[in-house]
Amino acid sequence: FLSHPEELGVVAVGFSGGQCKPGVDAAPSALIASGLLTQLRDELGYTLHGDETVHLYRDLVPAHDPPHRGMKNPRAVSAVTRRIADQVHAHAAAGRLVLTLGGDHSIAIGTVAGTTRAVRERLGREMALIWVDAHADINTPETSGSGNVHGMPVAFLTGLAKEEREDVFGWLGKESLVSLRKVVYIGLRDVDAGEKRILRENGVKAFSMFDIDRHGIGRVMEMALAHIGSDTPIHLSFDVDALDPMWAPSTGTPVRGGLTLREGDYICECVHETGSLVAIDLVEVNPTLAPANDTGAHETVRAGCSLVRCALGESLL
Amino acid sequence: FLSHPEELGVVAVGFSGGQCKPGVDAAPSALIASGLLTQLRDELGYTLHGDETVHLYRDLVPAHDPPHRGMKNPRAVSAVTRRIADQVHAHAAAGRLVLTLGGDHSIAIGTVAGTTRAVRERLGREMALIWVDAHADINTPETSGSGNVHGMPVAFLTGLAKEEREDVFGWLGKESLVSLRKVVYIGLRDVDAGEKRILRENGVKAFSMFDIDRHGIGRVMEMALAHIGSDTPIHLSFDVDALDPMWAPSTGTPVRGGLTLREGDYICECVHETGSLVAIDLVEVNPTLAPANDTGAHETVRAGCSLVRCALGESLL
Amino acid sequence: FLSHPEELGVVAVGFSGGQCKPGVDAAPSALIASGLLTQLRDELGYTLHGDETVHLYRDLVPAHDPPHRGMKNPRAVSAVTRRIADQVHAHAAAGRLVLTLGGDHSIAIGTVAGTTRAVRERLGREMALIWVDAHADINTPETSGSGNVHGMPVAFLTGLAKEEREDVFGWLGKESLVSLRKVVYIGLRDVDAGEKRILRENGVKAFSMFDIDRHGIGRVMEMALAHIGSDTPIHLSFDVDALDPMWAPSTGTPVRGGLTLREGDYICECVHETGSLVAIDLVEVNPTLAPANDTGAHETVRAGCSLVRCALGESLL
Ligand SMILES: [Mn+2]
Ligand SMILES: [Mn+2]
Ligand SMILES: [Mn+2]
Ligand SMILES: [Mn+2]
Ligand SMILES: [Mn+2]
Ligand SMILES: [Mn+2]
Repeated sequence: FLSHPEELGVVAVGFSGGQCKPGVDAAPSALIASGLLTQLRDELGYTLHGDETVHLYRDLVPAHDPPHRGMKNPRAVSAVTRRIADQVHAHAAAGRLVLTLGGDHSIAIGTVAGTTRAVRERLGREMALIWVDAHADINTPETSGSGNVHGMPVAFLTGLAKEEREDVFGWLGKESLVSLRKVVYIGLRDVDAGEKRILRENGVKAFSMFDIDRHGIGRVMEMALAHIGSDTPIHLSFDVDALDPMWAPSTGTPVRGGLTLREGDYICECVHETGSLVAIDLVEVNPTLAPANDTGAHETVRAGCSLVRCALGESLL
Repeated sequence: FLSHPEELGVVAVGFSGGQCKPGVDAAPSALIASGLLTQLRDELGYTLHGDETVHLYRDLVPAHDPPHRGMKNPRAVSAVTRRIADQVHAHAAAGRLVLTLGGDHSIAIGTVAGTTRAVRERLGREMALIWVDAHADINTPETSGSGNVHGMPVAFLTGLAKEEREDVFGWLGKESLVSLRKVVYIGLRDVDAGEKRILRENGVKAFSMFDIDRHGIGRVMEMALAHIGSDTPIHLSFDVDALDPMWAPSTGTPVRGGLTLREGDYICECVHETGSLVAIDLVEVNPTLAPANDTGAHETVRAGCSLVRCALGESLL
Repeated sequence: FLSHPEELGVVAVGFSGGQCKPGVDAAPSALIASGLLTQLRDELGYTLHGDETVHLYRDLVPAHDPPHRGMKNPRAVSAVTRRIADQVHAHAAAGRLVLTLGGDHSIAIGTVAGTTRAVRERLGREMALIWVDAHADINTPETSGSGNVHGMPVAFLTGLAKEEREDVFGWLGKESLVSLRKVVYIGLRDVDAGEKRILRENGVKAFSMFDIDRHGIGRVMEMALAHIGSDTPIHLSFDVDALDPMWAPSTGTPVRGGLTLREGDYICECVHETGSLVAIDLVEVNPTLAPANDTGAHETVRAGCSLVRCALGESLL
């Protein structure tokens, strides 16, 4: 589905406003410092577009940003994700594969909006969204307990959550939305009661850790990709907290009982193998969250790099 | 098989006499202090019966209790398990689900005797016993090397080990026994030579870690539950040492190469899904056994709570 | 395929010249000190042949040993592996099962050459080679980046790498070679670009960690053993770095994302179950490589012992 599959548009998003813990904005620099982009260019042969400058979007963060419908930093998150949507759209419209390094998961409102629109424009097709996460991130402002927008992106991206105000996600047009039938979750294990109801009522395809234990990750990926079908471009949004804290401790909302790194890499390799990948996000790496003297941050960054490389074609044999 | 499936009879057993390491009697308090009962009530909606008082059974421990047929503390373990049998029977006879928090695994002589008898009385049925453990706990006094009764409960409960003396398990009547055909082991990996012979000669259904690696935990649970059949009430006796020490280090006889916490939770969820569960024991958590400054005890208690919640209906989606 | 399956020829190889990190020569003593041989004799019932003396082969290491075709210590490795080939051949020719405790993986040039020749002589058959490793060890001197011979044994053993000079592997005759069609890899995850090409061009059967995640270790072993067939004697060469560093950190070239100890044991148990095993190597345990105050070396030695015991018949039930 890409006219230039060997060209990679890179967007480095140093943004943490979708949740309350500082540090997740330091992830893109840490990922890049550990050699990720060099590896993608030298080992996997991509031509990189976009520079290595991490965007901080400080000009877009208003001085005064009171809650709206309970959402924290609503105008900042809206403005930043709108900008990200344009950045991602520019790459995707040029037929490039897009890699976005977050940042918290709220930024996926921008990345997915950008690719969905470009895929519609370029190919006249709907896009599928694979959301790998411990969490469903499908709260509406009303069902959310915390008001953190990083728990709501799927609700906004599928039209479950709507808002008229232009400066609070009102800019998200129909052309930027994804159908709930085209969303597939993998790795869920900490889902709010309200979210469970949403998933059930809408028949959303979701593979929890229970399903992975039952069927094995091999069979789960077969089922996930069969649901999407081979005729559909795929956006992969990977929240590093889908991995077990044993492999990725440095993240804002770790949950035990997660994917092994092997399973995470396997998911990414399978998605790559489809040949349908049009964009990947790696989010919620927070290098500042780790016990002192611990190697947790280093391990988490390394795990994140591994996931991205696998999604972009690194293979064992 | 329960007339009141939403009612949970709780028995908190602070007893460690079935083995030699102090501390396993502190488990029920630790499990309760970490919020287990509150979660069962508030999140899973059970009505709890039995109070939060931990039974220490001090009145039942005789001053003089010399070995009998090599068994250590034979009269104490016999008297305490007999009392436990009555406590569990009272709940089970009322049609409640029963949760017993041990204590060492010898206490299952009481819990299983109590439920078996109640199931026979209430339903006229045999009961199945799922024993999740690194060990088979099926030594007779004569095959046991250590004389610790926590390595013998299955032998007494199935009638393999018999004793006439009323004060040393002579009270275990036919109505309290389980058929060896109705016992299913999961997680075995440290089985004595004598026990292997017993298992083989009696054709006992046993899934070792080797079987779990071969088939995956999903298929193993299918086979385990198929063996039991859908017409049979199930007592689940979960020894926390079935989990790998990576997840449950604080236990008296840890053995490497065990279940991941994910697999343990999965077993419990599958048993819950059958709708046939009539009782669960969680045993051998020993919060005092952990390296200093280590989080092992905390992790083990958390793992134990997770297992119980999964068996009692907590699900990811 | 053994005339004396209950007799075990033991060769303890304290050699580290196939790579550059000192300490791997200390492995045999550490494995023996932890009780491995005693267990094999007392618990598994083997009659041991060969003594517990660790061979250091100092008489075979020349004072001057400059690189040849880029290989480091070429004459030393050649002379030592030639001697090992004779030692292993002597046991194998007597119809014994052979256990070699390394040492680095270059020593497999000797062990496999010894068993292949004996199998041809005794049975007129080809032998299969199961190579469990994070690495393919199939570099030729020319494709190798490091010049370490422990990365080349499979190339020499299959005739991919050839050398006329008698003192640099020229002694390896046709009768000592294994067919590439009879080689099966398990656990690969760090394979050089040149090696990938070799594997692909020769259609070598190789199960990477990706395959293990896709199919599960149970199905992978089925496929691996089906490829070999039931009519073929098997030499199992187990590099401890096939295990994830979580279980075997003390090794020269650890690679993340490896086998769990459970999977490693399972592989060994399956190979034992075939009844076709004629020899096993355990290599690359390096007890000196572990963070100070860490239990890594102890754990690695324990893991190595476990693998050997499983390959030699220890089973859970
Ligand atoms: Mn998350
Ligand atoms: Mn997320
Ligand atoms: Mn046990
Ligand atoms: Mn037990
Ligand atoms: Mn290796
Ligand atoms: Mn090797």
